[in-house]
Amino acid sequence: MNKKKTGLAPGSIVFTGNRKVEKVLIHHLQYDENNSKERVLNNHSESTLTKSKRPIVDWYDVRGMHDTELIDLFGTTFDIHNLILESIVDINQRPKFEEYEKGNFVLLRALTFDTEKLVVKKEHVAIYFNEGFIATFQETESDLFKSVRKRINSERTRIKTRLADYLAFALMDEIVDNYYLVLESIEFEIEILEEKIIDSIDSTNRNKIHHLKKELLILRKSISPLREAISNFYKSESSFIRDDSRVFIRNLYENTVQIMDTVDSYRDILNGLQDLFISEVGFKMNKIMQLLTIISVIFIPLTFLAGVYGMNFEYIPELKFKYSYFILWGVMITIFICMIYFFRKKKWL
Amino acid sequence: MNKKKTGLAPGSIVFTGNRKVEKVLIHHLQYDENNSKERVLNNHSESTLTKSKRPIVDWYDVRGMHDTELIDLFGTTFDIHNLILESIVDINQRPKFEEYEKGNFVLLRALTFDTEKLVVKKEHVAIYFNEGFIATFQETESDLFKSVRKRINSERTRIKTRLADYLAFALMDEIVDNYYLVLESIEFEIEILEEKIIDSIDSTNRNKIHHLKKELLILRKSISPLREAISNFYKSESSFIRDDSRVFIRNLYENTVQIMDTVDSYRDILNGLQDLFISEVGFKMNKIMQLLTIISVIFIPLTFLAGVYGMNFEYIPELKFKYSYFILWGVMITIFICMIYFFRKKKWL
Amino acid sequence: MNKKKTGLAPGSIVFTGNRKVEKVLIHHLQYDENNSKERVLNNHSESTLTKSKRPIVDWYDVRGMHDTELIDLFGTTFDIHNLILESIVDINQRPKFEEYEKGNFVLLRALTFDTEKLVVKKEHVAIYFNEGFIATFQETESDLFKSVRKRINSERTRIKTRLADYLAFALMDEIVDNYYLVLESIEFEIEILEEKIIDSIDSTNRNKIHHLKKELLILRKSISPLREAISNFYKSESSFIRDDSRVFIRNLYENTVQIMDTVDSYRDILNGLQDLFISEVGFKMNKIMQLLTIISVIFIPLTFLAGVYGMNFEYIPELKFKYSYFILWGVMITIFICMIYFFRKKKWL
Amino acid sequence: MNKKKTGLAPGSIVFTGNRKVEKVLIHHLQYDENNSKERVLNNHSESTLTKSKRPIVDWYDVRGMHDTELIDLFGTTFDIHNLILESIVDINQRPKFEEYEKGNFVLLRALTFDTEKLVVKKEHVAIYFNEGFIATFQETESDLFKSVRKRINSERTRIKTRLADYLAFALMDEIVDNYYLVLESIEFEIEILEEKIIDSIDSTNRNKIHHLKKELLILRKSISPLREAISNFYKSESSFIRDDSRVFIRNLYENTVQIMDTVDSYRDILNGLQDLFISEVGFKMNKIMQLLTIISVIFIPLTFLAGVYGMNFEYIPELKFKYSYFILWGVMITIFICMIYFFRKKKWL
Amino acid sequence: MNKKKTGLAPGSIVFTGNRKVEKVLIHHLQYDENNSKERVLNNHSESTLTKSKRPIVDWYDVRGMHDTELIDLFGTTFDIHNLILESIVDINQRPKFEEYEKGNFVLLRALTFDTEKLVVKKEHVAIYFNEGFIATFQETESDLFKSVRKRINSERTRIKTRLADYLAFALMDEIVDNYYLVLESIEFEIEILEEKIIDSIDSTNRNKIHHLKKELLILRKSISPLREAISNFYKSESSFIRDDSRVFIRNLYENTVQIMDTVDSYRDILNGLQDLFISEVGFKMNKIMQLLTIISVIFIPLTFLAGVYGMNFEYIPELKFKYSYFILWGVMITIFICMIYFFRKKKWL
Repeated sequence: MNKKKTGLAPGSIVFTGNRKVEKVLIHHLQYDENNSKERVLNNHSESTLTKSKRPIVDWYDVRGMHDTELIDLFGTTFDIHNLILESIVDINQRPKFEEYEKGNFVLLRALTFDTEKLVVKKEHVAIYFNEGFIATFQETESDLFKSVRKRINSERTRIKTRLADYLAFALMDEIVDNYYLVLESIEFEIEILEEKIIDSIDSTNRNKIHHLKKELLILRKSISPLREAISNFYKSESSFIRDDSRVFIRNLYENTVQIMDTVDSYRDILNGLQDLFISEVGFKMNKIMQLLTIISVIFIPLTFLAGVYGMNFEYIPELKFKYSYFILWGVMITIFICMIYFFRKKKWL
Repeated sequence: MNKKKTGLAPGSIVFTGNRKVEKVLIHHLQYDENNSKERVLNNHSESTLTKSKRPIVDWYDVRGMHDTELIDLFGTTFDIHNLILESIVDINQRPKFEEYEKGNFVLLRALTFDTEKLVVKKEHVAIYFNEGFIATFQETESDLFKSVRKRINSERTRIKTRLADYLAFALMDEIVDNYYLVLESIEFEIEILEEKIIDSIDSTNRNKIHHLKKELLILRKSISPLREAISNFYKSESSFIRDDSRVFIRNLYENTVQIMDTVDSYRDILNGLQDLFISEVGFKMNKIMQLLTIISVIFIPLTFLAGVYGMNFEYIPELKFKYSYFILWGVMITIFICMIYFFRKKKWL
Repeated sequence: MNKKKTGLAPGSIVFTGNRKVEKVLIHHLQYDENNSKERVLNNHSESTLTKSKRPIVDWYDVRGMHDTELIDLFGTTFDIHNLILESIVDINQRPKFEEYEKGNFVLLRALTFDTEKLVVKKEHVAIYFNEGFIATFQETESDLFKSVRKRINSERTRIKTRLADYLAFALMDEIVDNYYLVLESIEFEIEILEEKIIDSIDSTNRNKIHHLKKELLILRKSISPLREAISNFYKSESSFIRDDSRVFIRNLYENTVQIMDTVDSYRDILNGLQDLFISEVGFKMNKIMQLLTIISVIFIPLTFLAGVYGMNFEYIPELKFKYSYFILWGVMITIFICMIYFFRKKKWL
Repeated sequence: MNKKKTGLAPGSIVFTGNRKVEKVLIHHLQYDENNSKERVLNNHSESTLTKSKRPIVDWYDVRGMHDTELIDLFGTTFDIHNLILESIVDINQRPKFEEYEKGNFVLLRALTFDTEKLVVKKEHVAIYFNEGFIATFQETESDLFKSVRKRINSERTRIKTRLADYLAFALMDEIVDNYYLVLESIEFEIEILEEKIIDSIDSTNRNKIHHLKKELLILRKSISPLREAISNFYKSESSFIRDDSRVFIRNLYENTVQIMDTVDSYRDILNGLQDLFISEVGFKMNKIMQLLTIISVIFIPLTFLAGVYGMNFEYIPELKFKYSYFILWGVMITIFICMIYFFRKKKWL
Repeated sequence: MNKKKTGLAPGSIVFTGNRKVEKVLIHHLQYDENNSKERVLNNHSESTLTKSKRPIVDWYDVRGMHDTELIDLFGTTFDIHNLILESIVDINQRPKFEEYEKGNFVLLRALTFDTEKLVVKKEHVAIYFNEGFIATFQETESDLFKSVRKRINSERTRIKTRLADYLAFALMDEIVDNYYLVLESIEFEIEILEEKIIDSIDSTNRNKIHHLKKELLILRKSISPLREAISNFYKSESSFIRDDSRVFIRNLYENTVQIMDTVDSYRDILNGLQDLFISEVGFKMNKIMQLLTIISVIFIPLTFLAGVYGMNFEYIPELKFKYSYFILWGVMITIFICMIYFFRKKKWL
């Protein structure tokens, strides 16, 4: 939540994130049913951005968002609405699907799980497409869509026979597939936690549970609007979305539903684990206190007896008797054993 | 949650589970109103899969899912959509009902309860049917549909007078009926737990409650989408579903609603049980600590008295008096009895 | 939850409860606007079940459900759908309203509260009616509908001027009215509990709260689907339900809504009570521990002082002084009083 | 919840509350745009109830409900449906709005807050109106509608230019306005509680929180159906409700929504307060126990040292040395100071 | 919640807040596509309020609400409905959007976060607009809309080319943008709390958590109805709202959804933090008690031993032996070390 934009007119193109790349990298991939052609644009001038005629698909894969002038250039070259340009560079916006007259717009988040810091890393991704043109924008240089590109460059794949709407779907599918990896990592962490909790009462476990719950909350905040966005995508009557793509989008929608379900059940499990942990810790600490108290309780009557025979009354008959001392030891040891036996029987020891 | 498919094109047929059978077993049952004919296919070549003319119903009962080539063969022979084939072998998919042009598709989960490990075992089951053709796919060799097959092989049963839609219903009914057995087992475990909790403060009970809650969560995740799927089945306007089958599907739907209700109320009961357990344990431990503390408290003033008469002042008048020692014993026993009486009266002992 | 039916064909008539009556009792009441005629059927042969012509209303009140042949006989005589017959004897089914071509069917539960065991007793009740025919089925011999029968046998009551749909309503109204009695009993128990909890920390109270919560859960599971059923009844466009009956059914619906509200608020109150109880018990136990600890703390410095003057150093000047002993007593009593005063002031005592 | 009516035919006029007035008071107010005329009816005979011709509005304000014969007389004189008459005197019914052919019917509850007992007092109020006739029924003699009557008796107020539907709205508005006073009182109590909780650990505060939560539950049960009733009023297409009244009813509806919001947020605050209280009490008690234990812990090693030099060994070199006693005091005081310092540094003291 | 209006006729113009300005300040800004003209009205007479012809937009920015006569003057001059005037000065009303025949009305709340007292300050803001006229009313003198005014006074900005509906949107956008700042401050406070909680067990942290939760509740009560209001604004078919403004309002709507999401997730985080805090405090206190008890437990057997050799029996052989005293010290030190070792190994120390 850091909105750098308060006080500006709506529609102002302001990058709200932190610059994560040195220089914006633009990867241009052009393909039709039979061919595909790749190039990397170094010089971001107006002339390098070109519009092809259909049925060729042009995919501009832009990595880096800080260069708002470049975004503006995209806007003017490919006739993209100002509010879309604003959304592209506003990393605080929630995932959404929006229909405009000249193209459709999807915002979503690529997620990866840092297994060391146990942190879900988010990357803001924007996809704009109409019939034959598609542009994707991401924050970092990571090659999110490697396998899609590989499929396009392969011979005779379904993806090449279709237009930009199917490519948009494929890219979203790629990102959502990675959510499963994130969930897997979290599940793995939960399982480790479950084992640890029964063994020890280390309070770092509790902090980890708290931390994972927070990460799931963040996950939820990314996935819940995405589900809605994909549902809108599916129900959209935009002319840029073909009917034979819809069945795939329905599938994608079901995946997001399943992911949400899983996130929610992980939250439930973590809540259960937290309760378990707290009650386990309480139980163990109480057991320790009980043991300590029992030790005290065993010695208290013995100390009392010793005290009694330490009194200085002139006439205490037992003191004169020769074996008193040994008898008292016998009595004390008997009391000691009886108490141990009693506490054992009660299962307090 | 282990998606082996990240990075593949959508529609790729990949078995996402663990291979559970040596060799895929195909059981073919053909019947019409009067006759039924069974055979087991050992040779899974193209020629063994045959299409019959209506009104004969062909039921292919396939046990084992790892052989994706066989699934592919089914797809080409019986003209099944690629996305269906993908779903058949993807054991991570949620229960669902889907209408396609050439047939309807149901995914669900057969559940059994392992009473030793207290674990709900899931088996992924897929049913594809159109007017006269039905194919079922399951992960293991277990004969899930034994009683349905028996009914078909019996003379003059309703099931034989109807087509594949009714058979699909009957198979789903068979699987949902088994959910009741799972619930019964869980109810039985809950009742045992309820009795145990009042008796002892063994912490294994808490772990069991936690475990059962998790199993119910898993159950819920299977049943909740199934309910939706059956509702879609009921509301489907597919031409392969006859009107006189719908009343049965409505009944099935109501069963899933009831099962969901029961699962939810078990969760409520387990939550209540957990609260009860934690507060019971806390109560008992506090009672023990209280008892131990009372023992200390009783001896502390007595030890003080003994300490007083162990002092070495030259002039302590009581020390000289002959019966002092016995009087002191009397005083100490009186104090002892008074304190016991006081604590009893306060119901602390 | 004990489904005896797993593995049977849907529509099989199987009584899933425990037989509660020796012999099924059938009470036949026939009435029109002016007359009413009662008889008890002992011989359950086909000939005893007769269909009258309208506008006479025939009410068969069947008590006992184990005799599935008799149910079957009803089915064939009065042309009742097989799925209805199955539902009549399946005591595990949830309350529901169903429209069939030849009549409407209502399932509900008569509830009574056993004030000794604090248990809500459920009885499965089925009502089937069309224009002039109505049949009710219940598990036990208890006369659930006594006052309705009395109204019919009285002169000039509204009920006699109307047909079977109004009678069905009147019977449901009778059963729902009894829910208020159940709620009243539970409210009474809750009030008793509220008073007891402030007085004592007896752990039976907690078990009672837990138990009542479970009973309310059961109640909820009966009433929630009933509310839905009555709503369906109200909205039904069945030709067997007359418009002037609907306003009464709306009233009945509002009653079930109110009952659900009350059940839910009782659950809330019980939850609050449970929290109160647990915190009250914790508070009181802590108070006790505090008191006990204070007693220890008061004697510990005194015992220390006694210990000091019990030391055997050769040169302890105080020991020689004549009034040391009395002065020490004075000091110890002063310390004692100061500590008591201090703890009082701090309100710990 | 005390339903006196079990076993009676629906539509029976039975007063289900406790009689709260000696004699039913009927206040009759007749007004049109220019004039208003008041009278109090002492003789409740048929002749005193008169119907005026429109556009005169007749308002019968009936205080006291036990006289069911009078209610019946109203019914026959002004042609009111039997089910309405039943609802008027059934104080257990939830707030509702109902359209009948000859008039509309509103049930609601007047609430006042008894600031001494902290109890929300409910009064059952029924309003029946058609175009020019309106009758209100309440349980007690309190003049709920004083300010409305004053507005009618004033010159040139909007209320006089309108018909019974607007008056019905004005009366409901009057009652709902009083809810704000109730909420204000509760807010005041909550604020007091918030201050008290931080000061002391008196357990009466917890009981008060529990009590207020219960009162809010009761409030909710009155307001939640009222909101629905007013919504139905607003959406009603009854010919007795004029379009220019609707905008006022919408306003009233928004008030109930706001009241519900406030009630819910108070419940949240009270829940938070309860958690705060419990944890605060636990914290303070633990602090006390800690302090007490520290006192013990300080004296225990000192007592041990005193015990050591109280031993009777023949050869203990320290005993012979002249200044041993004073040195030991020095050691003990040093230990004492060190421990105090240590506990202070750890912030345990 | 302080309704000053109980007992008044609906539609009465009563300021329900506390007067926050000396004199009401009216700022009048008139603009069309090319020009803009500002003036401050000091004399609030009828003549100063003027209506311009379209396409000029007149914006009256009124700061201060206590002067109900002025509000009335606005009402008569610009033909504003009485219920709107009532809502303008009723600071207790929830945010809402209402369509009237002659204009649309929006209520909302400007929020600022007082970082010292950690309090969310609310200011009631009302916006009334039709085609070319817009009036805003606020409680204090703070210049809420500074940046909007700046945009209007700049050359060639979109805002000047549009009419009052877009200005209304821009003003609401301005206010909603400030919500992000409030959320940022709260997030900052939460982060500080998270760090503090792990360090110390100071109970002020708990009060802060409780306080922030309450503030979020207040925030929620402002934002939740606002979301609804903006949704109604978006869906409104009022002729005063142009289609090209709608896309901006949709954006604004999404912002409120995101803000609600954030508020809810902060609540979740605070709840988690509170649980963490309570369990952390409990854990630390238990650790301290455990340490204290261990100290006691170590000295208790030693004190017992000293007590034994302080007894006065005539025949205790050890007492005569020369090195007994030193051997006993050795034994006691051994016991001491063993116990320390034991507790260390158990990780209790």
